[in-house]
Amino acid sequence: MIRIAVIGIGRIGELHARHLTHRIPNAELSALVDPDVDRVEALAQTLGVETVATRVTAVLGDPAIDAVAICSPTDTHADLIVAAARKGKHIFCEKPVDHDLGKIDHALTEVHRAGVKLMVGFNRRFDPNFAHVQAQVAAGVVGATELVRITSRDPAPPPLAYLKVSGGMFLDMTIHDFDMARFLVPGANVTSVYASGCVRVDPAIGEAGDIDTAVVVVEFDDGTLVTIDNSRRAAYGYDQRIEVFGTEGVVWADNNTAHRTGLGTAEGMLTPRPLDFFMDRYIDSYIAEMQAFITALDRGTQVPVGGVDGRVSVLMALAANRSRHERRPVYLSEFN
Amino acid sequence: MIRIAVIGIGRIGELHARHLTHRIPNAELSALVDPDVDRVEALAQTLGVETVATRVTAVLGDPAIDAVAICSPTDTHADLIVAAARKGKHIFCEKPVDHDLGKIDHALTEVHRAGVKLMVGFNRRFDPNFAHVQAQVAAGVVGATELVRITSRDPAPPPLAYLKVSGGMFLDMTIHDFDMARFLVPGANVTSVYASGCVRVDPAIGEAGDIDTAVVVVEFDDGTLVTIDNSRRAAYGYDQRIEVFGTEGVVWADNNTAHRTGLGTAEGMLTPRPLDFFMDRYIDSYIAEMQAFITALDRGTQVPVGGVDGRVSVLMALAANRSRHERRPVYLSEFN
Amino acid sequence: MIRIAVIGIGRIGELHARHLTHRIPNAELSALVDPDVDRVEALAQTLGVETVATRVTAVLGDPAIDAVAICSPTDTHADLIVAAARKGKHIFCEKPVDHDLGKIDHALTEVHRAGVKLMVGFNRRFDPNFAHVQAQVAAGVVGATELVRITSRDPAPPPLAYLKVSGGMFLDMTIHDFDMARFLVPGANVTSVYASGCVRVDPAIGEAGDIDTAVVVVEFDDGTLVTIDNSRRAAYGYDQRIEVFGTEGVVWADNNTAHRTGLGTAEGMLTPRPLDFFMDRYIDSYIAEMQAFITALDRGTQVPVGGVDGRVSVLMALAANRSRHERRPVYLSEFN
Amino acid sequence: MIRIAVIGIGRIGELHARHLTHRIPNAELSALVDPDVDRVEALAQTLGVETVATRVTAVLGDPAIDAVAICSPTDTHADLIVAAARKGKHIFCEKPVDHDLGKIDHALTEVHRAGVKLMVGFNRRFDPNFAHVQAQVAAGVVGATELVRITSRDPAPPPLAYLKVSGGMFLDMTIHDFDMARFLVPGANVTSVYASGCVRVDPAIGEAGDIDTAVVVVEFDDGTLVTIDNSRRAAYGYDQRIEVFGTEGVVWADNNTAHRTGLGTAEGMLTPRPLDFFMDRYIDSYIAEMQAFITALDRGTQVPVGGVDGRVSVLMALAANRSRHERRPVYLSEFN
Repeated sequence: MIRIAVIGIGRIGELHARHLTHRIPNAELSALVDPDVDRVEALAQTLGVETVATRVTAVLGDPAIDAVAICSPTDTHADLIVAAARKGKHIFCEKPVDHDLGKIDHALTEVHRAGVKLMVGFNRRFDPNFAHVQAQVAAGVVGATELVRITSRDPAPPPLAYLKVSGGMFLDMTIHDFDMARFLVPGANVTSVYASGCVRVDPAIGEAGDIDTAVVVVEFDDGTLVTIDNSRRAAYGYDQRIEVFGTEGVVWADNNTAHRTGLGTAEGMLTPRPLDFFMDRYIDSYIAEMQAFITALDRGTQVPVGGVDGRVSVLMALAANRSRHERRPVYLSEFN
Repeated sequence: MIRIAVIGIGRIGELHARHLTHRIPNAELSALVDPDVDRVEALAQTLGVETVATRVTAVLGDPAIDAVAICSPTDTHADLIVAAARKGKHIFCEKPVDHDLGKIDHALTEVHRAGVKLMVGFNRRFDPNFAHVQAQVAAGVVGATELVRITSRDPAPPPLAYLKVSGGMFLDMTIHDFDMARFLVPGANVTSVYASGCVRVDPAIGEAGDIDTAVVVVEFDDGTLVTIDNSRRAAYGYDQRIEVFGTEGVVWADNNTAHRTGLGTAEGMLTPRPLDFFMDRYIDSYIAEMQAFITALDRGTQVPVGGVDGRVSVLMALAANRSRHERRPVYLSEFN
Repeated sequence: MIRIAVIGIGRIGELHARHLTHRIPNAELSALVDPDVDRVEALAQTLGVETVATRVTAVLGDPAIDAVAICSPTDTHADLIVAAARKGKHIFCEKPVDHDLGKIDHALTEVHRAGVKLMVGFNRRFDPNFAHVQAQVAAGVVGATELVRITSRDPAPPPLAYLKVSGGMFLDMTIHDFDMARFLVPGANVTSVYASGCVRVDPAIGEAGDIDTAVVVVEFDDGTLVTIDNSRRAAYGYDQRIEVFGTEGVVWADNNTAHRTGLGTAEGMLTPRPLDFFMDRYIDSYIAEMQAFITALDRGTQVPVGGVDGRVSVLMALAANRSRHERRPVYLSEFN
Repeated sequence: MIRIAVIGIGRIGELHARHLTHRIPNAELSALVDPDVDRVEALAQTLGVETVATRVTAVLGDPAIDAVAICSPTDTHADLIVAAARKGKHIFCEKPVDHDLGKIDHALTEVHRAGVKLMVGFNRRFDPNFAHVQAQVAAGVVGATELVRITSRDPAPPPLAYLKVSGGMFLDMTIHDFDMARFLVPGANVTSVYASGCVRVDPAIGEAGDIDTAVVVVEFDDGTLVTIDNSRRAAYGYDQRIEVFGTEGVVWADNNTAHRTGLGTAEGMLTPRPLDFFMDRYIDSYIAEMQAFITALDRGTQVPVGGVDGRVSVLMALAANRSRHERRPVYLSEFN
């Protein structure tokens, strides 16, 4: 039984806390940490968690705790990773690790020094659709990868206040797609990123210095070319599709829907639009992700998404930002 | 080059005449016969046909003509088959051969005596979708057949005047599905038919003594059970689907559509409804059917849909009528 | 909070016990009853259930218990309903209520006299796909119902030992489809059933006096015609589809699959087969069903599937048996 | 009746000649021109064409001829356009007009001066799928366009000899997608093209100085971003899909298939792969395209794809070539 503390119980932290309580048999949710004392006490009571804290130090000093799940704001991630590593705790950290490569590198160094495990929360790797596609690719079913298409469109933009601290579209939203690109082209490395973006959804997003519509081309060192297209708003819901084209064929994942029904009238045949809310769409992936982390601790095996994965996805986002501004493909090697 | 005369140039006769002229290379449309002198002359001019007649005798006496395509009203079919057979002409006859078993048997006897070929116009056997399904079944891909589903729904009922002379729904419309059932269960024989029907579309159809909505269960001597469902009106178009379930799997055909596009909005994902008009839906099948007839004559091989096929489908329709009235399954053997 | 005891913890009883513990917030699983003392104690420990019993009397006498879920073998259902009703417990009972109409009627009388609620476990009504189809029909989206198609094919037959006590295919398997037919034609009554069946899957099933392949035609008093086709074995998985055709259009539900991926190769485009195991396929429906029962108790509202629904489905199965043997449509009125 | 001569009767010229003879009622195929005297005489005989020539001058001097269809090799197009224009003939010219902008501009100037019509053979605009998508976009069904995806993958590369004179992948293959991008974003202008390409299919293609795998990003002046992905080889057939995403929704076209059947086995559900051969896939578009040309002549209306369309698509291909070599987005304005 792995004893774990959840740090930060915003939307995603509460989600992990609930899964750790109800859906993951070999985990024990031992502590909740959040500065909002009322909220954290209420959740602890609901879930039957004994230890509650408003500061992380109490929890990190508790020798009975094996691991922490860092679900606090992004700008706290790197420091918390360092603090947890130094106390010998294994770490699950929500994406992105940080917006600053220096801070990420420092955190990874500390993790390495401490010999603890660090898993980064790229939940989409654990989505049954995408995991199946990747498994087919990894098994060689489509041969060598050549072209990958990732379509990732949100149903609606997040609040402007959130956007302003998000690090921008590439670090906040496309980062999932950057990780997905790497997941879908196993055994190869990203060489360059070319990005083009603009403001189409809401001028206020542009005024805040961000974009809401983008396409990105990613080149891998095995010759695979990836196109990503993003929008912060899709009238028909949350559009999450991937396609991997290789020498021997193509494999893809379509959207999930609430049900499998259809309606035929004189208008045509109407089937359901994609599941709209990211928690509905990806609920299974969050459970599977946390289960994978707990199982890796339990068995002493490697975590499936490591610190390097967290680092490279940020690198790609930084390269995309630079590419968009400088109107040229940017090589990851420029950052080293 | 097979020289052929088309007898009767209503909608279906004109269709065959045009195909024989433009789409079937090894046929020559030599004559058109129809009592409507203006209409037949106009069509002959359009298609460049030399011989035009208002009566069939002229054409049957012409030794240069190899074959006739009988597209006149149903009540003339049997007599025309007999007349053509006696003159040594090969015969393509639209379905149904007749509504009366005695007349059918007499016609088949004459055909047999004359040694000419007779093909009955069950065009749906030549539809690329259905032909592919049947080929899979015949090749054993789904193993032994067990359950067959045929959905056959018209977009809208024909004019009441037509319905009154059509012989009723089973002889006019379901007869295609009866033949399809036999096509999809190769090598087995129909033993019984159970039919239930009612009037849902238009009370006037009921007042004319007919039904417009029906389900039929057909039993074959190899144990295969077929369900057919029919309606004279489908709000979403012309619904023509089949499914064959066997020991090793299932094979099916969906509807054709005008294009392969989709539209996603907040309402859902909208794709095109089925092709609406039977001539659009089955145009390829009419060409392939006539080509098959011409090729069989050209090569001296067997026609793919013979007089017995025409006879059994009528037998099934008669059994369905009796079944509906007597509220019991009716055995084909009752008619022999 | 509704306090409930589960009686019988075979596969389905254990499922309900787990859902009542983990997934249904306003229920408290208060007791488990099963003659297998080891098994019931082990499950009680896993789920943290206080009261354990090998006989039902202890539980029925406990005034703290509000309701029972009867998941024991079919031949105990009617007696347990009577016993529970007399003790004032609300009742959830797995299908079928019984194989004998007299016993069912007696049980329903006792339920009525006791004024308790009785819900019958037709879980498929709570499947998101089928519930959505029914909601569309009930909302009039397809107009008046005319034709219904139900395809219901198991992946593989159950053990012969089970089949021998199951009451036969119509009472064990098709009973779900009989209830589905009634669910999909709201506001109308079944008048007759015509059934044709045979042995195609396993001769041993035939030797045990049962069939494994069947089609059924159900007639409703509003003119709706339903066809059901069943097989005890489908090479491609668990095939569960419905379609409702009405005056204004058609609405249908396709099969669920494990994921939404596809693979394109020179062979064609391959997508996943239907979910294979009934617990995977219908897991959501079991949760929603039990939630609906608990909510009805909690709020004092009517249960969504009552004793009459349990009774009519058995009546239809008995009519189907008689129809198959007597080779004629059987009217439900014959049984009253 | 429009009298037309076909110049060049290779694969595509013969196709147009056959359509002009059999499928386009208001056209008369008056002459065939080709240096291969045997081939041109044989085809003339088959199609009943009176005038046959090995040189174009005879035909251009014939006052009875209204129009020419230029289907000869690309390097003859510009000169033939000029020659035909000077003789007052209307012109249908296969794509691309030329590889050289100067020659294109000269030809367009001559066409303008002569006051004849020039239509360029971008047949895909006339494909029923793509035309329907474009009509939806033009009608505003998806609102303002934001993201367009074009997937265009050949089943197999053409012969190396052809590739060597083709002008390279962008001028030979992607040019269709460049035109499609413009077709799908009506009322906006291309500003820049970014291209990345490599050799994955056949090293011999690379040795010939060409690429066989590419992605292209096209930017329009209304902010629309287009991604194109190309391969010279797709194991599963000829993959031709488009998708237009706008403020109000998304509209797309899937591949055509030979039939609409499916096969379900333990492996999954198998449906047909895309139509493989471009003449099968686009046959309807070739007929509709030529019909549109003839109709424009007949009615004196504007041709639907003009000289400017031919010019801009070449410009985009040249920009793509430059982009790929210089590793930067190239603005069309750089060429003016």
